[in-house]
Amino acid sequence: MLSTASEKASFARLLTDLGDLVHVERGETIYHPGSASTSVFVVEKGRVKLAYLDESGKKLTLSILDQGEIFGEMCLVGEKFRRHLASAVDDTILRCVPRKEFTDAISTDLDGLQQLVRHFALRMREYEETLEDLAFRDIQARLSRQLLKLSDEYGVATKEGILIGFPVTHKELADMIGSARENTTLALNRFEREGILNKSRYRIVIKNEAGLRQKIQVQQ
Amino acid sequence: MLSTASEKASFARLLTDLGDLVHVERGETIYHPGSASTSVFVVEKGRVKLAYLDESGKKLTLSILDQGEIFGEMCLVGEKFRRHLASAVDDTILRCVPRKEFTDAISTDLDGLQQLVRHFALRMREYEETLEDLAFRDIQARLSRQLLKLSDEYGVATKEGILIGFPVTHKELADMIGSARENTTLALNRFEREGILNKSRYRIVIKNEAGLRQKIQVQQ
Repeated sequence: MLSTASEKASFARLLTDLGDLVHVERGETIYHPGSASTSVFVVEKGRVKLAYLDESGKKLTLSILDQGEIFGEMCLVGEKFRRHLASAVDDTILRCVPRKEFTDAISTDLDGLQQLVRHFALRMREYEETLEDLAFRDIQARLSRQLLKLSDEYGVATKEGILIGFPVTHKELADMIGSARENTTLALNRFEREGILNKSRYRIVIKNEAGLRQKIQVQQ
Repeated sequence: MLSTASEKASFARLLTDLGDLVHVERGETIYHPGSASTSVFVVEKGRVKLAYLDESGKKLTLSILDQGEIFGEMCLVGEKFRRHLASAVDDTILRCVPRKEFTDAISTDLDGLQQLVRHFALRMREYEETLEDLAFRDIQARLSRQLLKLSDEYGVATKEGILIGFPVTHKELADMIGSARENTTLALNRFEREGILNKSRYRIVIKNEAGLRQKIQVQQ
């Protein structure tokens, strides 16, 4: 029915011709917590980051979304105001589909609904894993899992090792694992000393994936 | 399309006559992490707890499910083995629907699919809130939010205040907020001293909801 969990739900084909295309530059905000929740967005090109911001400004990255994925979809189930910060990781083209238009297109479309089920199921699984990380794993283990995930999804093979295929700062990594920037840098420095990775400004190359995997296990 | 988020998705009506009914006693395990993921369960009566167990035996309660709710649904999107521990909170009757039977019944049923979308969306929202709690809130704030949630969903008005409508131990509360039992007891004792609640064995009565709400704010 819903194919396998490894396959990301793609809405690009399904929603062609709906809504409007919007260009967003790298780093630009798409919506803030508290803004009206009235549209669903489809990533047509580029990459988007969803993050939770607490009142004091601390940030937790919830998800990074690629081409074909949707976000802002909680307006479909009654959300009135955005709860997250959505921003463009790269220069990005979005399809912005008003809630009603999205609903009309998809609520009588078996394929569309199945896709939506898959989308939510996968996002839920992603959140589950982050929850388990936050509840049970120390920073080195969380960082290792995050780096393996980035390597798996965005890795580019180079002579040196697997390059994470987009620029990422220590602060951004810290937000992905719910940690402070300082502690994340300490862990990265340690991994570099141990020959697990090379890092320079915005650039991380993983030299020893097995070493990262071991960091996740070693804690138990 | 999908009604509002406050309305829990109920599958009881939709799946009548499918699968088999199973009786599970309070405290009994329904499935373990690692067991084969082959069926979806519907809570016909009673209450079920889903928890994540790490290898060292630490536990994080992910969700408490009531009548009409489903669980084990990740088998629909390719899950081969259970990742959680499911156990009965009360004496419980479950409808156990084999994956294929569930899929056949629901994949061509617009109502059913919409319900499934709503189910996943609500579960995702629940996980988001737990994530934010774990990343940003201290134990007192997490405990306050959890008590308000239990009071909202299972509260029974009494002369004394709002009684959480099922027996709950300090350890169970600790698992719900991803904390150690000792720290949870310390926070409960403090709340009792401050006149926010009364507690006795397995029984919690909230006397001052506003006091709990304040505990969530005060941190910022």
